[in-house]
Amino acid sequence: MKQDLRPQMLKLIEESLPGVSIECVILGYGEGQLKTLLFQTKHEVTWSLPGGYIRKYEDIDEAAHRILEERTGLKSIFLKQFHTFGKKDRSHTNNREQHERIWKALEKFDLNQDPLIKDWMDQRLITMGYYALVDIRKSHPRPHFFFEKCEWISVESLPELFLQQQHTISKVLDHLRVQLNYLPIGRSLLPEKFTMQNLQKLYEIILRRPLVRSNFQRKMLSLGILVRMEKHMTGAPNKAPYQYCFDREQYEIALKKGIGFNI
Amino acid sequence: MKQDLRPQMLKLIEESLPGVSIECVILGYGEGQLKTLLFQTKHEVTWSLPGGYIRKYEDIDEAAHRILEERTGLKSIFLKQFHTFGKKDRSHTNNREQHERIWKALEKFDLNQDPLIKDWMDQRLITMGYYALVDIRKSHPRPHFFFEKCEWISVESLPELFLQQQHTISKVLDHLRVQLNYLPIGRSLLPEKFTMQNLQKLYEIILRRPLVRSNFQRKMLSLGILVRMEKHMTGAPNKAPYQYCFDREQYEIALKKGIGFNI
Repeated sequence: MKQDLRPQMLKLIEESLPGVSIECVILGYGEGQLKTLLFQTKHEVTWSLPGGYIRKYEDIDEAAHRILEERTGLKSIFLKQFHTFGKKDRSHTNNREQHERIWKALEKFDLNQDPLIKDWMDQRLITMGYYALVDIRKSHPRPHFFFEKCEWISVESLPELFLQQQHTISKVLDHLRVQLNYLPIGRSLLPEKFTMQNLQKLYEIILRRPLVRSNFQRKMLSLGILVRMEKHMTGAPNKAPYQYCFDREQYEIALKKGIGFNI
Repeated sequence: MKQDLRPQMLKLIEESLPGVSIECVILGYGEGQLKTLLFQTKHEVTWSLPGGYIRKYEDIDEAAHRILEERTGLKSIFLKQFHTFGKKDRSHTNNREQHERIWKALEKFDLNQDPLIKDWMDQRLITMGYYALVDIRKSHPRPHFFFEKCEWISVESLPELFLQQQHTISKVLDHLRVQLNYLPIGRSLLPEKFTMQNLQKLYEIILRRPLVRSNFQRKMLSLGILVRMEKHMTGAPNKAPYQYCFDREQYEIALKKGIGFNI
């Protein structure tokens, strides 16, 4: 029995601005890995960033938030626009081989017969990229509506992605790597309390190279954004490492004014 | 006698992607002022940033370069994409009062009769902003085709601009103000040799606040990107200030790695 998704798709086309789309890269940090939130619809054969079209009556920032919520259930996330992708060959059908597999999978939904839908899939797209850094422990994504799965997947071992989304993720990571040099990072990625080793590991994961422990500690402490927590003295020898938290006020100032932190 | 611009306009509409446009903010520094390049067409009543539409067969970066060259004659400029503007009410007819004046001025060109042209002007636009920092002394903009004037105008005393372009310029300036904290600036804005006072003045103009001379000098020198030129000793007392130039290699490294420069 076929499920007819055409009316839904035609409504979407009717309501959306042609030629433009949005992709959201949501990054989190867990199990020593930088992860990104990907989802899959029932009928898709690839994984995908939360992405979609802009409605005719929506600001693009509003669209990014709605799309993220529709696909993953996450809301009130601080999304930052970071780049607009506009190569002339950018379209849903740019990757011919992948497109044919998806199209085949779509057959059972009768989507591939409609010329309007075909034109929509073939159109050139200009895509606005957004990203957010979130605390995985506090984020509880779940697939909404007809979306099947929604998972945090390590950026180091991504599955096959829809179209050029690998490129979108790389571009965010490049952006973060540069940003590490002048802005603090970590507050939205790490738990409230963390060790210096946790923090160093996060930097190493983003930078993709090992850092010297003593240098790292000295530089981080010189920024004045960390508060060292007292150890609870029990009388027994305590070899647990010190824990730190971010100084909220100093962190905010550093975010605004930049830091002098060249690794 | 009326000049019929309709065929030209209809061709433009036919060749361009609907719903998207580009605006370029070209900043230069001269006479102690930060200036931006504005132009006017024969039939327009306001000044405008170099801006326009994207052709169906062009990458958006290519479109930005073509538009800049078409309107000002400038080419091979390093344009940087900095923000995409996408409020739902963004269109050529958003500022009703201004639009009516422009429309009235357009009457003699028979542009305001055509429904296709009217729809095009009314359409919602998503606008990609690009900027560049250039040396005014080396840039020789001149209006191309049917553009009338092309001038460097101080960002502190802008004339009436087309639509929300004031906002586009403010956004670039905000962007630069943040960037001053972590990237060197000046090489593309200042002449090859400059005094510490010239450099300080540039920072003050961008930051819109006075800086303390001794602090500024100390911080700038600590970056290792400046080379002090020898004075030519003539035997006579020489009170001229030292001149500096940027160390090309160190400047490049600072551009990549960021600097620890919090004013």
